[in-house]
Amino acid sequence: MPIPSSMSAVQLRAYDGKPESIAVAEVPVPQPGSGEVLVRIFASPINPSDLMFIRGLYGFKKPLPAIPGFEGSGTVVEAAAGIMPRLLKGRRVACAAADPKVTGGMWAEYVVTSAQFCIPLRKHVDLEQGAALLINPMTAWGLMHEARRGGHRAVVQTAAASALGRMIIRLGKRFSIPVINVVRRAEQVELLRGLGAEYVLNSSEPEFNERLRELCHQLGASIGFDAVAGEMSGIVLRAQPRGSRLLVYGGLSLQPSQADPASLIFEGKQLEGFWLTGWLRSRTLLGQLRLARQIQELLRNDLKTEFQAKVPLPEVGRALQQYAANMTAGKVLLMP
Amino acid sequence: MPIPSSMSAVQLRAYDGKPESIAVAEVPVPQPGSGEVLVRIFASPINPSDLMFIRGLYGFKKPLPAIPGFEGSGTVVEAAAGIMPRLLKGRRVACAAADPKVTGGMWAEYVVTSAQFCIPLRKHVDLEQGAALLINPMTAWGLMHEARRGGHRAVVQTAAASALGRMIIRLGKRFSIPVINVVRRAEQVELLRGLGAEYVLNSSEPEFNERLRELCHQLGASIGFDAVAGEMSGIVLRAQPRGSRLLVYGGLSLQPSQADPASLIFEGKQLEGFWLTGWLRSRTLLGQLRLARQIQELLRNDLKTEFQAKVPLPEVGRALQQYAANMTAGKVLLMP
Repeated sequence: MPIPSSMSAVQLRAYDGKPESIAVAEVPVPQPGSGEVLVRIFASPINPSDLMFIRGLYGFKKPLPAIPGFEGSGTVVEAAAGIMPRLLKGRRVACAAADPKVTGGMWAEYVVTSAQFCIPLRKHVDLEQGAALLINPMTAWGLMHEARRGGHRAVVQTAAASALGRMIIRLGKRFSIPVINVVRRAEQVELLRGLGAEYVLNSSEPEFNERLRELCHQLGASIGFDAVAGEMSGIVLRAQPRGSRLLVYGGLSLQPSQADPASLIFEGKQLEGFWLTGWLRSRTLLGQLRLARQIQELLRNDLKTEFQAKVPLPEVGRALQQYAANMTAGKVLLMP
Repeated sequence: MPIPSSMSAVQLRAYDGKPESIAVAEVPVPQPGSGEVLVRIFASPINPSDLMFIRGLYGFKKPLPAIPGFEGSGTVVEAAAGIMPRLLKGRRVACAAADPKVTGGMWAEYVVTSAQFCIPLRKHVDLEQGAALLINPMTAWGLMHEARRGGHRAVVQTAAASALGRMIIRLGKRFSIPVINVVRRAEQVELLRGLGAEYVLNSSEPEFNERLRELCHQLGASIGFDAVAGEMSGIVLRAQPRGSRLLVYGGLSLQPSQADPASLIFEGKQLEGFWLTGWLRSRTLLGQLRLARQIQELLRNDLKTEFQAKVPLPEVGRALQQYAANMTAGKVLLMP
């Protein structure tokens, strides 16, 4: 298939989160430079981190107009100079643009990205699962890695009904680490119970704080994963036993994390962050390759992503709306 | 001097911070049990931690009615069984009651405390400086110890005009670690400049956040000490360079500490606590003795406490009011 000179791409025109700041436009197909590849994109999910990026709340901004979309899958159709790019030519890959050095994004027909941000897909992994391979499965794996490395007896997590939350639940079973799951709505309690989660608490219920505290102490949940921030960080930190760590990896409430001075001072608790990009950078290249292999082996079960809809690129507005309205129902996949 | 059977003591009747919940009463002089000593108290300061205790916001509560006062100085007039108590008999000591195991408190004529919470005063240290030897000087030393141990290039601190804040400033000079000082009022800027502080910022000024950020980055203030909590924690954490730690050691704002998810996630910053009691417990007995010697050597200069008033015990209400109204002016010393 010849490479055209122009393509359809989603364009972000302002970091204000307004629907009218996002449109689909015809733009030139980018050219890979040294060490880079051109990928024809098959699919790209909408992640909470994309929503943060669009609102200007992510860790960096790209020059406007920018193409959003931090991860996706596709086929490497062109490779620039360099050993790694040439090894990838013609291969199916999962790839990422969640780095300020990548000027493009995945919500387009083509993307130029660094060969080091591409992972060749193994035979049993299809392009749909491959599209959501990087951000959620790797973050879930990274968080559970912290729990195992620190010898924590149990884990407590917020936003437990999210795609990532469910992966944590399954990894908890795999590694025999009990997971205490915090959700906001009764139907999410049912959903997670149906998936086999043992400990599920609804933060809208009156006795929530007390029950959370009891459970965290009983099971020894000395590490926590928080995607909500705001008051919820303080509630979880208060509930955890002495000397606990709470890793914030998202800010769905759009509020600053709170922490009682008493939790920090008298109980030796810590509030920290977890960022996949930073965590991956701290690993060796070999460690990253081993990780990519492990993750792909688990894609069929523990790290499987569920999709609620596949939406063609021109309907990105509807896709964003549908996803934001119900993240629990699964990822929305943009199909260029 | 014979030991009477009853004494004057401040009594706390409810943890509500109301003036009427505090009164002076005549109570029995307590009897030391094994490992304990009876101290005739000379003086005891009012510290922010006492104010927190009275309001029920400290890390523990004592059974009511309780005698407040976490530290003081005096003479050991009676010693129960044990080598340590006998060694202390007749000696001038600084002593502490900041532990749930000590049922009494220092705002009284006598206190029973564990011999391990008493530090014999060296000849050059008078009972006035000895009264405030433990909490502020040791906390200041402990915080700066963290800064030196971690190899931090500079320190940023809030509530810098407090007694403890000024000690940090002097220790910064001693160890050649620049200290960025945050205060709330223009006269505190003048005060600290007069004491030789180089970097003083007023948080009430319009460009404060920006100037704080510039200074923290320029000097490399990758560790911070925060006694205010609330929004201030988030502001300082935002201003600090990547990978910084902020140690909360007080909560003067009476609000939960805030932290932007972006600071935690993308910049790898951490919010922690510092508690003197916990920090001391983590040291060996030998380390504690060496520390007591070092601190006493610095009491004349770097770790000198300034007093704004000496108030007899029966006027505790006025003393509390005077101290809370202007902590910057120095400690208020209760004289039983």
